[in-house]
Amino acid sequence: MAIPEHLSLTIPESNLPRIVIIGGGFGGLKLAKGLRKTKAQVVLLDRNNFHTFQPLLYQVATAGLEPDSIAGPLRQTFEGNPNYFFRMVKVTGINPGNNEIETTVGNLTYDYLVIACGSITNYFGNDDIKKRVLPLKRIVHALDLRSHILQNFEQAVLTQDKTKLQQMMNIIVVGGGPTGVEVCGALSELKKHILPRDYPDLDFSAMNIYLIEGTDRLLNGMSKASGDNSLKYMKKLGINVQLNTRVEGYENEVVQLSEGNIESSTVIWSAGVKGNIPGGIDASAIERSRLVVDEFNCVIGSNNVFAIGDVAMMKSEEYPNGHPMLAPVAMQQGVHLAKNFKKHFSGKARTPFKYFNKGSMATVGRNKAVVDMPGGFHVKGLLAWLIWMFIHILYLIGFRNKLIALNNWVWSYLTYDKGTRLIIRTFQRNKGKGS
Amino acid sequence: MAIPEHLSLTIPESNLPRIVIIGGGFGGLKLAKGLRKTKAQVVLLDRNNFHTFQPLLYQVATAGLEPDSIAGPLRQTFEGNPNYFFRMVKVTGINPGNNEIETTVGNLTYDYLVIACGSITNYFGNDDIKKRVLPLKRIVHALDLRSHILQNFEQAVLTQDKTKLQQMMNIIVVGGGPTGVEVCGALSELKKHILPRDYPDLDFSAMNIYLIEGTDRLLNGMSKASGDNSLKYMKKLGINVQLNTRVEGYENEVVQLSEGNIESSTVIWSAGVKGNIPGGIDASAIERSRLVVDEFNCVIGSNNVFAIGDVAMMKSEEYPNGHPMLAPVAMQQGVHLAKNFKKHFSGKARTPFKYFNKGSMATVGRNKAVVDMPGGFHVKGLLAWLIWMFIHILYLIGFRNKLIALNNWVWSYLTYDKGTRLIIRTFQRNKGKGS
Repeated sequence: MAIPEHLSLTIPESNLPRIVIIGGGFGGLKLAKGLRKTKAQVVLLDRNNFHTFQPLLYQVATAGLEPDSIAGPLRQTFEGNPNYFFRMVKVTGINPGNNEIETTVGNLTYDYLVIACGSITNYFGNDDIKKRVLPLKRIVHALDLRSHILQNFEQAVLTQDKTKLQQMMNIIVVGGGPTGVEVCGALSELKKHILPRDYPDLDFSAMNIYLIEGTDRLLNGMSKASGDNSLKYMKKLGINVQLNTRVEGYENEVVQLSEGNIESSTVIWSAGVKGNIPGGIDASAIERSRLVVDEFNCVIGSNNVFAIGDVAMMKSEEYPNGHPMLAPVAMQQGVHLAKNFKKHFSGKARTPFKYFNKGSMATVGRNKAVVDMPGGFHVKGLLAWLIWMFIHILYLIGFRNKLIALNNWVWSYLTYDKGTRLIIRTFQRNKGKGS
Repeated sequence: MAIPEHLSLTIPESNLPRIVIIGGGFGGLKLAKGLRKTKAQVVLLDRNNFHTFQPLLYQVATAGLEPDSIAGPLRQTFEGNPNYFFRMVKVTGINPGNNEIETTVGNLTYDYLVIACGSITNYFGNDDIKKRVLPLKRIVHALDLRSHILQNFEQAVLTQDKTKLQQMMNIIVVGGGPTGVEVCGALSELKKHILPRDYPDLDFSAMNIYLIEGTDRLLNGMSKASGDNSLKYMKKLGINVQLNTRVEGYENEVVQLSEGNIESSTVIWSAGVKGNIPGGIDASAIERSRLVVDEFNCVIGSNNVFAIGDVAMMKSEEYPNGHPMLAPVAMQQGVHLAKNFKKHFSGKARTPFKYFNKGSMATVGRNKAVVDMPGGFHVKGLLAWLIWMFIHILYLIGFRNKLIALNNWVWSYLTYDKGTRLIIRTFQRNKGKGS
């Protein structure tokens, strides 16, 4: 977006210390909420005016939920707080020496800076792949993916070319983490219940869904039991899972794998993420594309620049390479940092962050999910699916859209129907795609 | 969208007569549904894969409803009918001499053709205006408008330039028909209940909403009583209504009116529509940008090309210039034409179309609406609003999204909140805009 000259990033001066938060994701939002009664001026910056409930992006991409159901306006969080300011701007860099950030509409000084920029898709340096695959980290990605998948089938009914047809009927998902597994599950439900009704001209026995994973198991962040169970579910759903397989290239609708090729016009990239680090941070504070922070989430080498969530790497005995890049970590760090700010402002000693692992989960589809509970318990099947559903609806509360999501899910469950398989914007690959 | 060479518009040959319907709007959809048990091959073509509930577009544009709530997948209509074919293509022209239509993916022959292309925004030949204003005829328009309005306020908090600020705070709606009146009402609710909470930095007493109408009254298609009542409501809501005023130009954020100028960065164009006529039709069949049809909806000069809805002009004693361009007319013509096809195929005489006017209505906002009932009754206020709400929810049934719409409305009514004020796609004026 071209920014007209008359714009500038002006925040009223005050006697209060100014805390600038970059990013309104799970971490930034929790922090901002936690600072409500703190004697500080809070400035939240985000390139979007909404928070995204990322764990359900795959539902939008596969026509299960409407995009607005998993997004909530950020300004709502700030209502009634005279010392709170939201600005929809893109941060282009940080100048820690001057206590200043740079944005597309000008600079802004801070007393305290919190980097909560989350993570972006990791293409592992392969620009060709980046240009041609479909990521799934933002709402626009999910909408693009939904349009791409549906346009593909609309085009499939218009072709007599068997090679092209098969390319359109093959969908490749790269990366067997929660996103990859959940996308595959949702796609297999579309294949089974929705697409054959919508496209009676097509033979869906020829539709193949591939899940390509580089390591020897699925759901690496979860227990081995859950990884094994999800693999069983994937096979039951007819997903072609290829473990120990790397994607080496993607050109002319052919994916080159470490073993063999697959023709496909749809490659969904959920192979990994990396910290979304703004420019200007000293390289010594960066490790594995994340910002190294101490136990107070303070970026090493600084005393007023903090980082929370996916972008932060806090090493501990239990997590020598930092915490997993998950929403609960970001939320807990946001809550904790807010408390530490309060303590700091009232002259009390800050407390170190400790992650409370409430468990993790992934869903594969109707009645099929895996849950790792604290204490080493594993749950699978219908019970796991109900837990997954309950937790997600619980977290969507406050979004106000819980009713809509619930409606959609109940409807979808009872009727095997999905309501939002609409191509709202025609999507062209390699154009206008974010990272 | 660039169409690859391997695509073609192929429909299986059959012994049944082929009815090709262009457009899945109110008319085309009713016709397709009505033909379900007819011995014919039915081919529906639309550039979108969804039907749009156009009367509620203004709700999407003003963040009251989600886009998916007013759109329904077209393929669903066709499920289980082996002689039905939907193709998502753009029709580029008609060749009545060869009984053939031309599309972006090739040609298709027909035995019977029904043109149900609806209407497009009428800029009355002013290309400068067309480039700079915001229309409201399609879902993408509504999304663009929502993004534009919200981006405007996001930018307003970033400017210190008073002239620019006032341009951003002025919204001009051109055209005092139902769309213009409804948009103004929704904008005034945003101004009163939502925006001051979301943007505490801005002074909303400086936000002006103008409604510019060329004739001497509002709601020209309705009774004088309803026009007068809507004018009273507009004034009560603080809308600046200027009757007998023409828009002569729009340049450098200044709208030139027949009397005076207004600075504004947002001009919403609801000044009129015209028939969306495909190329290739003989000029003798076109009058006032609509296709002249006989009482059987057959385009004059043809015996197998029909037109229904907004694009059709059926002259009668009661409607010497054709029926009003409204959804009920299109729906009734669709239903009627389906019956006539059935009669025709079974050798019976066709019956002429007669429009049954069930009344018309427009809503201005919470508790404020006007309804013209058959028989010359006029209803206004809360009762009219309840009738409006009831009818719209009734018609949304079958869309399946009625529950979502109802949720949103109930929520919005109880809390004075609107949920979907999200800028999902950054919108730039003068780019990628349809007509």
